[in-house]
Amino acid sequence: MAEKYKLTYFNIMGLGEPIRFMLSYMGIDFDDFRISSYPEFASKYKPNMPFGKMPVLEIGNDRFYQSIALCRYLGKQTNLGGDNLREDLEIDMIIESISDVRSTVWTYFYNRDEQNKEKIKPKIMEEIVPMYMKKFDEIIEKDGFLANKKLSWADVYFVAILGYFSYMIKDDICKKYEHIRDLRDRIHDIPNIKAWVESRPVTSW
Amino acid sequence: MAEKYKLTYFNIMGLGEPIRFMLSYMGIDFDDFRISSYPEFASKYKPNMPFGKMPVLEIGNDRFYQSIALCRYLGKQTNLGGDNLREDLEIDMIIESISDVRSTVWTYFYNRDEQNKEKIKPKIMEEIVPMYMKKFDEIIEKDGFLANKKLSWADVYFVAILGYFSYMIKDDICKKYEHIRDLRDRIHDIPNIKAWVESRPVTSW
Repeated sequence: MAEKYKLTYFNIMGLGEPIRFMLSYMGIDFDDFRISSYPEFASKYKPNMPFGKMPVLEIGNDRFYQSIALCRYLGKQTNLGGDNLREDLEIDMIIESISDVRSTVWTYFYNRDEQNKEKIKPKIMEEIVPMYMKKFDEIIEKDGFLANKKLSWADVYFVAILGYFSYMIKDDICKKYEHIRDLRDRIHDIPNIKAWVESRPVTSW
Repeated sequence: MAEKYKLTYFNIMGLGEPIRFMLSYMGIDFDDFRISSYPEFASKYKPNMPFGKMPVLEIGNDRFYQSIALCRYLGKQTNLGGDNLREDLEIDMIIESISDVRSTVWTYFYNRDEQNKEKIKPKIMEEIVPMYMKKFDEIIEKDGFLANKKLSWADVYFVAILGYFSYMIKDDICKKYEHIRDLRDRIHDIPNIKAWVESRPVTSW
């Protein structure tokens, strides 16, 4: 009997969506368990989560965490990993760069000091985010994909968090980047991912 | 003839040190090229760096970036990677957790809004950092190492950035955590790393 997969996360796309994309791509059935509010998470779940965080993926009786680590693990089990260490490195370099810009935007988004937020906004919105997006767009234009000129879990991961990015910056992050939009369309056209996107719960991010 | 390795970074430990530790561990000779100031970097080097960032490692004629991606790549070539995908996942989960706390501390450290910095300081210094460090300390106490109960590149990476962490929080980050200190001592006692630490340029972080 196949092992059971259960993903525990909030009822948003956020950092859970890349794992949902990967599992869907691989045709793995999973229990998409969603916690409806932060207070519910904080009181009932957080104390037992690894480092107090989600998403968490249970595979059989084992429990794993960290979305990037999980996407890499899943990607290597299907045809979305590199064919050798150099190709894995190319994927990982892009993933770390996506992480850099994501953590910058994330810190901005969750900043509760409105005065400070306004102060740092121009640097983040007009410098950092466009610098990264432009480079990703150029890579996709040149190579078709983010790494190794072929589809990898880096592309799936990136496309899966675009909605989250857009929500955090309050604008469609792909608007100015036609090659990123094209990659998004191509990933969303993969039959298993298309089926997931069409059937998933509708959430704003 | 063996390929030449050249690491380009600032004259600090920072995010370059894990790569220097890994190369030293592996007995790989490398050109430890250090740029002495940020203005020099910004004017002469930044425009040609991938995503405008360092460290960058040249191997022969190829150029790679992102310290975690590089440590994984190097670790997999020696005996510091996992023996299978599950073991790699265990390493990666810890690495991503280290990244989470590092990026939080980093954002705090480089925050130029002194008023905001004071406001967020208690949460970072009294909640987030101790939560992570305590968990790392507990894992090391229980398993001897950060992942898979054996030495991996996660241990080398973590120990190599402790100096950087301490500098950013203005305190010895290991002070309260005896098992982290013990891991640091054990990593620093590995002959090739010991030789590196004794001969490296003395910098404060």
